[in-house]
Amino acid sequence: MSQANIMDNEVDIVIGALHSDLTTFMNEWRPVFSRFHLIIVKDPDLSGEIQIAEGFNVDVYTRSDIDRVVGSSTSVLFSGYSCRYFGYLMSRKKYVISIDDDCIPAKDNEGSLVDIVAQHITNLTTPATPFFFNTLYDPYRKGADFVRGYPFSLREGVTCALSCGLWLNLADYDAPTQALKPELRNSRYVDAVLTVPVRAMLPLSGINIAFDRELVGPALIPALKLAGEGKFRWETMEDIWSGMCVKVISDHMGLGVKSGLPYVWRNERGNAIESLKKEWEGVKLMEEVVPFFQAVRLPRSAVTAEDCVVELAKIVKEQLGQSYPMFVRAAEAMVEWIKVWKAVRSG
Amino acid sequence: MSQANIMDNEVDIVIGALHSDLTTFMNEWRPVFSRFHLIIVKDPDLSGEIQIAEGFNVDVYTRSDIDRVVGSSTSVLFSGYSCRYFGYLMSRKKYVISIDDDCIPAKDNEGSLVDIVAQHITNLTTPATPFFFNTLYDPYRKGADFVRGYPFSLREGVTCALSCGLWLNLADYDAPTQALKPELRNSRYVDAVLTVPVRAMLPLSGINIAFDRELVGPALIPALKLAGEGKFRWETMEDIWSGMCVKVISDHMGLGVKSGLPYVWRNERGNAIESLKKEWEGVKLMEEVVPFFQAVRLPRSAVTAEDCVVELAKIVKEQLGQSYPMFVRAAEAMVEWIKVWKAVRSG
Repeated sequence: MSQANIMDNEVDIVIGALHSDLTTFMNEWRPVFSRFHLIIVKDPDLSGEIQIAEGFNVDVYTRSDIDRVVGSSTSVLFSGYSCRYFGYLMSRKKYVISIDDDCIPAKDNEGSLVDIVAQHITNLTTPATPFFFNTLYDPYRKGADFVRGYPFSLREGVTCALSCGLWLNLADYDAPTQALKPELRNSRYVDAVLTVPVRAMLPLSGINIAFDRELVGPALIPALKLAGEGKFRWETMEDIWSGMCVKVISDHMGLGVKSGLPYVWRNERGNAIESLKKEWEGVKLMEEVVPFFQAVRLPRSAVTAEDCVVELAKIVKEQLGQSYPMFVRAAEAMVEWIKVWKAVRSG
Repeated sequence: MSQANIMDNEVDIVIGALHSDLTTFMNEWRPVFSRFHLIIVKDPDLSGEIQIAEGFNVDVYTRSDIDRVVGSSTSVLFSGYSCRYFGYLMSRKKYVISIDDDCIPAKDNEGSLVDIVAQHITNLTTPATPFFFNTLYDPYRKGADFVRGYPFSLREGVTCALSCGLWLNLADYDAPTQALKPELRNSRYVDAVLTVPVRAMLPLSGINIAFDRELVGPALIPALKLAGEGKFRWETMEDIWSGMCVKVISDHMGLGVKSGLPYVWRNERGNAIESLKKEWEGVKLMEEVVPFFQAVRLPRSAVTAEDCVVELAKIVKEQLGQSYPMFVRAAEAMVEWIKVWKAVRSG
């Protein structure tokens, strides 16, 4: 069996469907996705029958599946953009790749279609280097290496747990930035992947990510819901919160997080001014959340991602919970998520 | 007076001359350097009259100048690649740019000549963001911004103290890497600048750098000399050591360090196999040096770069000095350097 075939069987592509009609989306991605198993999870708030393109190996999950598996009291975790987490829960593969349904394949600087699966899998299957910064970016990439001064003992690297891809055209800006700079589009294709250093925090965008589900699957958590959260990325924080959790947990477990390639092309949707009227809580929340995650340390006794999430939830409740009730709910959702994760694994 | 004119008067370009004949080098750089004041420091070990191209505003310093200014007992600090530090000492400008004399201008992805002065000055005069990683790289660059989730309180950034540029063609690999992969050339032009996060260490290469001399000039120090150090970059460690010092001091002072653009084109020279025969100490030294700099913390009482270097020298002597006498000498050189720096300022 070829390396390529082995990988095909180790990858699930998870799509959270916030739109009923996925046929155009799937046809755009056909050259990249057709070899892989797809898991589509319909946003439980979305009405109308879901429409998908033919010729894919796909499982579609809807509200009734969610209710059946996790119970209707827990199923609220999976509304809106968080529906994709139900796909993470259902996956049995080593690697999960997840792309927002308003993205299509991008082209690189040479005009070639970007194969996001190949790039994400390369990112995840080559080591990460969180303990020292390599100025020439990913040292394992063809044509690159470790630069002079890089300690030889660190050149083996560590396992990469999470790969964060980027976006051309409409980048992942917040509503205030979109509203202030409505013409702003990202046209710069930066041909690089780098490891985000240990203890450095980043705003993980859930638009275009991949992760090693066996290692850190439980650490990607649908936990933080904003009061005025709608169906636009810039109204949400679930992925940013989830990203801080998985970064802290990866740091604790000695795993790496990479950012950079691959890019997707992100189409426009929504009206940022309308979103601004909702008084997005994300602005003030990040002022609390970032210093918290920069400072938090997990106990040595936490050795699995499940352990780490439960420990992190305790600290979230104690420390952040005092300022906003939303964080108490997030901590409860984290504990609930681990219960569900374990129940599904053992069931 | 235009912004461009102001900048012209605030920049010194420092060249350490390890070759006597700089005419080709200077002619290659004429389109970029001709508006600026150049400081050329001849390696005191180099014999033969130095030859420079006409039509530049340039000061040339030789061994006799070094002896006159710092005394012949201290002048040993400035041999080989470290001669450039005498230029840093003599500069009266706010910004210093330093390029190795075996580099010529690179071309960007569009085939345009890279203006390293403009790019380094842009890096130094726009804020750095060491406290949170921006996935779209430099948020102040045209066409970019802070992504969703980036705390608004951190969007003002901090002053950038140091800009580390990169290399096309012959990259800055060590002798073992060069010897193992003699065909390895860097052809990837990564169109990005990023801030190296606080507390993350990097292997600073002195080949192509710029810094704010008023803020961190004293923290770039000719301190670490290897026993078998020769006249090839891959035999030296002065810049790597200096880079760790300036990064720790910048972190302590709340300043930023950037890496990425601009690129220079680096020509081949030397024989890596010959260098390997010298048993380069750099390999084992970095195993001591990196954990030291990752862990070291400076006292709050150190508020200037001069203070910080003196405090750092004490800790180097106490902690690293026990394993290798070379570190004791480095600590002494750091203290000596600050004395010289202050004497020249007050003289």
